[in-house]
Amino acid sequence: MNTTAAVVGASGFTGGELLRLLAGHPEFEVVQATSRQYERKTIGHVHPNLRGMDLRFSTPEELQSVDVLFAATPHGVSMEHIDAFREAAGTVVDLSADFRLDSHDQYEEYYDGHSRPELLSESVYALPELTPHDRLSGADLIAAGGCNATATILGLLPLVESDILSGSERTVVDVKVGSSEGGAGGGEASSHAERSGVVRPYAPTGHRHEAEIEQFIGSVSFTVHAVEMVRGASATCHVFPDEPVTKGDLWGAYREQYEDEPFVELVAGGGGVYRYPEPKAVAGTNTAEVGFELDPANGRIVVFSAIDNMMKGSAGQAVHAANVALGFEETAGLDFRGLHPVGEP
Amino acid sequence: MNTTAAVVGASGFTGGELLRLLAGHPEFEVVQATSRQYERKTIGHVHPNLRGMDLRFSTPEELQSVDVLFAATPHGVSMEHIDAFREAAGTVVDLSADFRLDSHDQYEEYYDGHSRPELLSESVYALPELTPHDRLSGADLIAAGGCNATATILGLLPLVESDILSGSERTVVDVKVGSSEGGAGGGEASSHAERSGVVRPYAPTGHRHEAEIEQFIGSVSFTVHAVEMVRGASATCHVFPDEPVTKGDLWGAYREQYEDEPFVELVAGGGGVYRYPEPKAVAGTNTAEVGFELDPANGRIVVFSAIDNMMKGSAGQAVHAANVALGFEETAGLDFRGLHPVGEP
Amino acid sequence: MNTTAAVVGASGFTGGELLRLLAGHPEFEVVQATSRQYERKTIGHVHPNLRGMDLRFSTPEELQSVDVLFAATPHGVSMEHIDAFREAAGTVVDLSADFRLDSHDQYEEYYDGHSRPELLSESVYALPELTPHDRLSGADLIAAGGCNATATILGLLPLVESDILSGSERTVVDVKVGSSEGGAGGGEASSHAERSGVVRPYAPTGHRHEAEIEQFIGSVSFTVHAVEMVRGASATCHVFPDEPVTKGDLWGAYREQYEDEPFVELVAGGGGVYRYPEPKAVAGTNTAEVGFELDPANGRIVVFSAIDNMMKGSAGQAVHAANVALGFEETAGLDFRGLHPVGEP
Amino acid sequence: MNTTAAVVGASGFTGGELLRLLAGHPEFEVVQATSRQYERKTIGHVHPNLRGMDLRFSTPEELQSVDVLFAATPHGVSMEHIDAFREAAGTVVDLSADFRLDSHDQYEEYYDGHSRPELLSESVYALPELTPHDRLSGADLIAAGGCNATATILGLLPLVESDILSGSERTVVDVKVGSSEGGAGGGEASSHAERSGVVRPYAPTGHRHEAEIEQFIGSVSFTVHAVEMVRGASATCHVFPDEPVTKGDLWGAYREQYEDEPFVELVAGGGGVYRYPEPKAVAGTNTAEVGFELDPANGRIVVFSAIDNMMKGSAGQAVHAANVALGFEETAGLDFRGLHPVGEP
Repeated sequence: MNTTAAVVGASGFTGGELLRLLAGHPEFEVVQATSRQYERKTIGHVHPNLRGMDLRFSTPEELQSVDVLFAATPHGVSMEHIDAFREAAGTVVDLSADFRLDSHDQYEEYYDGHSRPELLSESVYALPELTPHDRLSGADLIAAGGCNATATILGLLPLVESDILSGSERTVVDVKVGSSEGGAGGGEASSHAERSGVVRPYAPTGHRHEAEIEQFIGSVSFTVHAVEMVRGASATCHVFPDEPVTKGDLWGAYREQYEDEPFVELVAGGGGVYRYPEPKAVAGTNTAEVGFELDPANGRIVVFSAIDNMMKGSAGQAVHAANVALGFEETAGLDFRGLHPVGEP
Repeated sequence: MNTTAAVVGASGFTGGELLRLLAGHPEFEVVQATSRQYERKTIGHVHPNLRGMDLRFSTPEELQSVDVLFAATPHGVSMEHIDAFREAAGTVVDLSADFRLDSHDQYEEYYDGHSRPELLSESVYALPELTPHDRLSGADLIAAGGCNATATILGLLPLVESDILSGSERTVVDVKVGSSEGGAGGGEASSHAERSGVVRPYAPTGHRHEAEIEQFIGSVSFTVHAVEMVRGASATCHVFPDEPVTKGDLWGAYREQYEDEPFVELVAGGGGVYRYPEPKAVAGTNTAEVGFELDPANGRIVVFSAIDNMMKGSAGQAVHAANVALGFEETAGLDFRGLHPVGEP
Repeated sequence: MNTTAAVVGASGFTGGELLRLLAGHPEFEVVQATSRQYERKTIGHVHPNLRGMDLRFSTPEELQSVDVLFAATPHGVSMEHIDAFREAAGTVVDLSADFRLDSHDQYEEYYDGHSRPELLSESVYALPELTPHDRLSGADLIAAGGCNATATILGLLPLVESDILSGSERTVVDVKVGSSEGGAGGGEASSHAERSGVVRPYAPTGHRHEAEIEQFIGSVSFTVHAVEMVRGASATCHVFPDEPVTKGDLWGAYREQYEDEPFVELVAGGGGVYRYPEPKAVAGTNTAEVGFELDPANGRIVVFSAIDNMMKGSAGQAVHAANVALGFEETAGLDFRGLHPVGEP
Repeated sequence: MNTTAAVVGASGFTGGELLRLLAGHPEFEVVQATSRQYERKTIGHVHPNLRGMDLRFSTPEELQSVDVLFAATPHGVSMEHIDAFREAAGTVVDLSADFRLDSHDQYEEYYDGHSRPELLSESVYALPELTPHDRLSGADLIAAGGCNATATILGLLPLVESDILSGSERTVVDVKVGSSEGGAGGGEASSHAERSGVVRPYAPTGHRHEAEIEQFIGSVSFTVHAVEMVRGASATCHVFPDEPVTKGDLWGAYREQYEDEPFVELVAGGGGVYRYPEPKAVAGTNTAEVGFELDPANGRIVVFSAIDNMMKGSAGQAVHAANVALGFEETAGLDFRGLHPVGEP
């Protein structure tokens, strides 16, 4: 008998991505997908890739009892409805920022007030390459890590773990993201005519994902640009180590960290066209590409990290976490490959 | 024990797509991938989506004995090496145009001379929604249908089968295609700076796929434009029926033709954003979207057909045909879904 | 002393384009730009290319007295305010569809009811390669031709004038357009994530520009697709002449029609990358590229016509018409060149 | 009588851009355009935006005597032919890197050996917002500044001049560039299918423009990414000042530096869609947009600088420099505006 799942907020971009993943998952069966706006419409009405699936949106007021509930709602919604979510499901995986931070003070610094601060320490942050799997196993409230934070943390984690980087605001993280980060809907700035072809500084300073990064890596100097793609997040981290390092040190640190990780690919300066991490090489997949280069002029380490913001940065991460939480194969439902060539995914 | 497969011409775009599909196929095991240019390189060197696969290119001179050989070589190569291919494999599936036409006269009209014309009648043209499956079953030389022809034939076939269209040069087929149709490599016209953002008439008249279409549907007036995407082919067919038809007639004809086809989706004017076939909705998949509209002003039928040229128009079609030929489940290895949202796939 | 001009609806896309053209025009001086939404903001706030221009939006309620008023408002607005426009300006150039058609019956067939039908016969339709310049000279109510109609009419006009085409619904016109045709604002379908990379049939039949085309060329079978670009409209016309024609006949007809036209470039099958008309080659300019090919298989004429929908299809056409109306040099303010290379303009 | 000009290397991208600018320039008349590959072809054969111009490519062996020669040849060519260039023209403006550096040692660090090192100190580096105009006036060998260096220098110059930045390798410069930087031609990596939609680290470290930047600004940590656009370069500079600064200090420094510069626009965090510098807002123009933000968390200054690499970063800069050198109006031939909206220019 399959494990039953519900997706709340299923007409949004990450909600649709969850439905795609769960439809191809060997363990899960989606029994409910909620959308207030599209109630009674087929999910294929909104997500053309899911045409033919026999499922219609229902309202979030009538939650069915399921094994796992995935909440893909805008920030602030989950904290309001968390009791209903937990009543409906033994395991809740939240894709929003509501339960990612441990400290209420830190939360209030970057967001508005939190209506259920006591749950911040109870929830388990899920970035499965970072979070110990025994913490995820059996967890009943899971907060999937955010897209830009995931890209950054995966890039810098090996340097922190190997003590090459000891957390410094002088670490510069320059991120480039696609338009799907803005979610479905969107206003004038995200219209095709205005958004096409941009290299647009949309969060020069003060991006909320700084908080997640700070929680695990330490302070960084963080700037986000919108660029021309729909899916994808690419983080370039400029690191100035206290002590000089060699490329061998770096290979050692990254291999040590990631050699057994099924969703991290090291890509660092081989030949061919694709010599460093690129978001289009991982579009549609749960893979993160991570790589680096060492600047001979000044010892700077340049780290590159590329993910699909809707997959490894959201829905894929959530399913990965649910796999670990429920004891399934870590890669279940996520072991497919991306496309080559592909345009602007 | 798995069925063994080889891919000849595996460093090209459709060769890489075959490797991707076969890697996720429950029945096939790829034991050889040839590329003269990239001999001994890993396949991930060329195809970044296949990093981590433990396979290196070998030369086409040393073909292994396999169950099925897929030839993804440029037009003209298969006919030169067909004896070696058939010696190596019980089933050869050719993705080029070399064996698609039945008649040597017709071949010579659109291509140069054919070195093995006697094989034209022996080979089986594979567009599995058109070709009787009993012809494909057990076939030892299969020619997978071409991309633009596939899109056009799938669009018009129900009209021909239902006698709404009786073959007329006044049927206009206006095709829009992505840059991957040109294959890997390419010259000045296909450089990013020159090719980006085009609506470029690249085959105003005399496109070679006319021959395939004529073979099954009759003459059409055929024009191909390059547009901004990497993957995808979209055919808009303007049909003037001899007798007036109703939308009910059209729904009847298309449902009759395709209701049991796993890879054809009818998309005709429902609500939402995606109301007609669009190539980006099927990118990366073997699905063809087919739809239509009736012009009340003059009785014209406008048919839309959208595929991924590298999948339903090439590698997917080839695997689909091999599934039928070898008696596997028709959808084996091809039953995954596309992405939403996605940019310019 | 300069001729004074006002732009009503100046925060929209074509309003901004008018401001750009008038700012570089040797004869006009813009003294007013209206926008209810952006009242008191600088025009550079909305149009980043016009930063540094010393002009702020005012409300349309307080029209200044000017020589020429350009109305770049949505369809239906001009007819409501036409008396105010005419009171403010001796010459009104309207860019909407409100005054393009001669017949009220025809108008009602494609649009809702017209509140000032008596002005339909009074207004002068302006497509300066079609409209006799003596009709434009001194005209006080001018309706600039629409984008898709302009592309189509310019493509087919030489065939009509030379009696090669005698108006037939069997002439198929397959149009591809950029996202700026939807105007500023726009909803879900025009968000970057949903609109990127499409080949989307958005007006399979019944497009309103059919009426303009029919008025001058006769009935055609008209279908419009949205493709990946912001600026541009490309019309491919498939014509079946009653009598066979030669390429020489076609060259004769097109040269005869356009050899003295400063804004039409014949592009028909020379060498190089750009062998036929392409919208990106004319982006930002008032040039229309027109070309053709003859299908040896069946005598079909394939005509290609490419314009920038915001220039030759709107603001450029309006300024061109105003130049003629007021007796200025025909090319005044419009004699600059486009870019090469350029991406998706 | 016009000033006569020749363009050597006129079939390349920047050569074509020079021809476009000179064709619209009130002072210059182009009398020769050389291209070995396209000898005797019209310039419109290669540059579709220049169709109708009555000029054909000639070979660089037969240089005419002109007032100004613009050399738009690949790096290394000008130094070989500089004597011929100087014999043909009183003023030579070179767009390559051959004469940009003052020191032979520095040149050899980033490039191969220089065949005419004695000219390095004789040539005048031209970035007219940096270079004193009296040095440019009457100069007979001018080296126009490079694209990525220009964007970076314009961003950082006010901080250096105001002593906020005292040159530090800890200044991180993260650059995003379009595909035209690779020039016409290009190989597999620049094919449309491979290059589309990338966020590709193409020069993680060791980019040659570091040398130009170091010459004027001091050492920086420099990394260049290829992103999806054809024209454009955007530099994001992360600066850690020794002493804390206020936004008022920054406004003061940037206004002081640029208030009288006709080609620099300060864009720093107003409202609307375009709040910071963006390359698409300046595409096709000689304008640089420069802006900044101050990170309240750690005092970091984030500077944004956006140019069209082919204009302010190459051909526009060269014409600007020639205007100053020959005593013309600084903005002659360069005072036109960009487009809005525009896609991926």
